[in-house]
Amino acid sequence: MKGTVGELGEFGLIRELTARLTSSPAVRLGPGDDAAVVAAPDRRVVATTDALVEGRHFRRDWSTAYDVGRKAAAQNLADIAAMGAVPTAVLLALVVPADLPVTWPVELMDGIRDECQVAGAAVVGGDVVRGDTIMVSITALGDLRDREPITRSGARPGDVVAVTGWLGWSAAGLAVLSRGFRSPRAFVEAHRRPEPPYHAGPAAAELGATAMTDVSDGLVADLGHIAAASGVAIDLSSADIDIPAQMADIGQAVGVDPLHWVLTGGEDHAIVAAFPPDTKLPARWRVIGRVVKATTAPQVTVDGAPWDKAGGWDHFGAE
Amino acid sequence: MKGTVGELGEFGLIRELTARLTSSPAVRLGPGDDAAVVAAPDRRVVATTDALVEGRHFRRDWSTAYDVGRKAAAQNLADIAAMGAVPTAVLLALVVPADLPVTWPVELMDGIRDECQVAGAAVVGGDVVRGDTIMVSITALGDLRDREPITRSGARPGDVVAVTGWLGWSAAGLAVLSRGFRSPRAFVEAHRRPEPPYHAGPAAAELGATAMTDVSDGLVADLGHIAAASGVAIDLSSADIDIPAQMADIGQAVGVDPLHWVLTGGEDHAIVAAFPPDTKLPARWRVIGRVVKATTAPQVTVDGAPWDKAGGWDHFGAE
Repeated sequence: MKGTVGELGEFGLIRELTARLTSSPAVRLGPGDDAAVVAAPDRRVVATTDALVEGRHFRRDWSTAYDVGRKAAAQNLADIAAMGAVPTAVLLALVVPADLPVTWPVELMDGIRDECQVAGAAVVGGDVVRGDTIMVSITALGDLRDREPITRSGARPGDVVAVTGWLGWSAAGLAVLSRGFRSPRAFVEAHRRPEPPYHAGPAAAELGATAMTDVSDGLVADLGHIAAASGVAIDLSSADIDIPAQMADIGQAVGVDPLHWVLTGGEDHAIVAAFPPDTKLPARWRVIGRVVKATTAPQVTVDGAPWDKAGGWDHFGAE
Repeated sequence: MKGTVGELGEFGLIRELTARLTSSPAVRLGPGDDAAVVAAPDRRVVATTDALVEGRHFRRDWSTAYDVGRKAAAQNLADIAAMGAVPTAVLLALVVPADLPVTWPVELMDGIRDECQVAGAAVVGGDVVRGDTIMVSITALGDLRDREPITRSGARPGDVVAVTGWLGWSAAGLAVLSRGFRSPRAFVEAHRRPEPPYHAGPAAAELGATAMTDVSDGLVADLGHIAAASGVAIDLSSADIDIPAQMADIGQAVGVDPLHWVLTGGEDHAIVAAFPPDTKLPARWRVIGRVVKATTAPQVTVDGAPWDKAGGWDHFGAE
C-alpha cells in the first residue's frame, strides 16, 4: 500500500480501515452509519475511554503501528475487564498528519482489531481527522453479565490483595529502550505490547472480589486509588512480590531496583483485586498484601512503611 | 481559577472537571472508576465517536472553550439522534498542552455538560492527557427504546426526503468569521454552537422513517451516503429549500450563492430522513426532495441535474 493519508483522503482511508475489520456476536450494526449498535444483554453497558499521543505515550521508532494499536486497545479493554465485565466493542478516534504513510493507520487498525479479538470484542465505529500529531483515542464497551460492577470502593479490612498478569515488565522494557538497547526481547515486547489478563476480571467478580482495578498508573498508585475510594489502608508484603531473575539482572545493569518497576510500572495492565480472606484463589492469582484499617489517611504501605519512591504516573508531571 | 493545566497536574484537573458534572437517570456508575456503567434498557446500546482538533475544527480566537464543548458534544449527540435513539451518556478524551490555562478545559467541560443536558445525557467518564495541540474526542451512547435503528440504507423509490433543523447557518457564519467579521450574530452563533434537533431523531423513527442521517458533511454529501447505502437516487427541489432573507443578504455581501451553504454546509447537524410518501409529517419537517430509482449510479441531484459545486467536506481535502 503506497502513498500518504492526505493523498488517499478521508473517505478512502476510512474504507481502507473498515475493510480490515472483523465482527463479533455483540455487533448489531457495525461501522458505516451515523452510529453503531452493540448488544448490551444485561441492560447496562460498561464504557471507558483513553487516548494515546505520539511522543508522549509511544514513539514511532520504538513501536510499530501494529503494536501501538494493540496497546491502545489493550489499555481500554483492560479497564472493562477490571470492572468485572466482558469487552464487547471498541470505537476509535484517530488524528493523523496528512503526510503520514497510509500503512501506519492501516497497521494500527490491524493491531486494534487483533487485540479486540483476544478480548472477544470488535471495532464498531470511529472517526479519522487530520492533525499535526498522531493521537489514538479509544472507547471500549463491555457487558457485566448480570453481575454488579467491581468498583474501587468495596475493599474491607481483612481482605487479601491479589494480582494477576505481569508487573513491571513494561517499565523494565521502557528502561531498556530508553538506554538505546533493544533487548532483552521479552521486556521490550512487554513494553510494546502488553498482555492484560482479560479473563481474570470477570473471573474475579465471580470469585467475589470486593474491589478491583487494572494497574495502569503503577501498583502502589492504583492500590492507592482503591485505598482512597474504600477508606482503607493496604499493606503489601515485598517477600510475596515476585521479581523474575532476568528483571533483577536488567535492574543491576541499569542501576534500578527492580522492585521499583514492579511497584510503580503501570503499562502492563495487570489486574489487582481485594478478596474476602477466605476466598479460594486459583493459582494465577498471587496474594501480595492485605487490606487493613486506615489509622490515619487511606494509604498503601510496603512491609508496613510508606513506599517513598516516585509513585506512579502523572500525565502532567515530570517526564 | 488560575494557573495552567501543567501546574494543576492530571489528577487535579480531573478532579476539577468531574466536580462540575451533573448526572442523569441512565448513569449507574459515573466518573472515577476504571469505567462507567450506563443503563441500556432495550439490551442494545448505540455508540458513536468524533474528534475535534484545534486549528482544524475550531479556533480559540473564534470560539470560546464553552462553545467548543457544546459543539463537540452536539456533533456526537446528533449522530445518536440520527439513528432514532435517545442520547444517554458521553465520554471525553481530552488532549491539552501543559501551558493551557485551566479555565479552558473547565469551560469546555461546562459546555459539554450543558449540551448533554439539552439532549438528556450526562458525562460519565473520560481521560485527560498532555499533547501539543488541543484535541477533543467524544463518544456518545444512546438507547433505541425498543425501536429498530434507522440506518442510511432503507430509503426506497417514492419516499419523500424531509429535513428538520438549521441548514447552512454554520457555513454562513464561518464565511462571515473567515472574512474578519463578527456579525450577523445569529449566523456566527450558529457556527460556534449548533443546535441539533435531537428530539427529531426518535420522533422520525416513530413516524416510520426509512433512512436517516444528521447533516455533518453537507446536505448533498450526506444524502449521497443515503443514496449509496440504499441503492437509490435522490432529487432535491431547490424551490422547496428555504433561504432566509438574512442569509441571502450575507451571500450577496460575500459573493457566495447561499444555496451553496444550504446544500454543502455540514456543521448545523440538521436531521434529514426519507419517509414513505403517505407519511403525515409534523410542521417542523420540510419536504425538500424525493427518492427515485437510480438509473445509473446512486446519486443526488438538484432539480434533476447534478449539483456541481464542491460537495461537502473531506477532512483531508483542500482547506
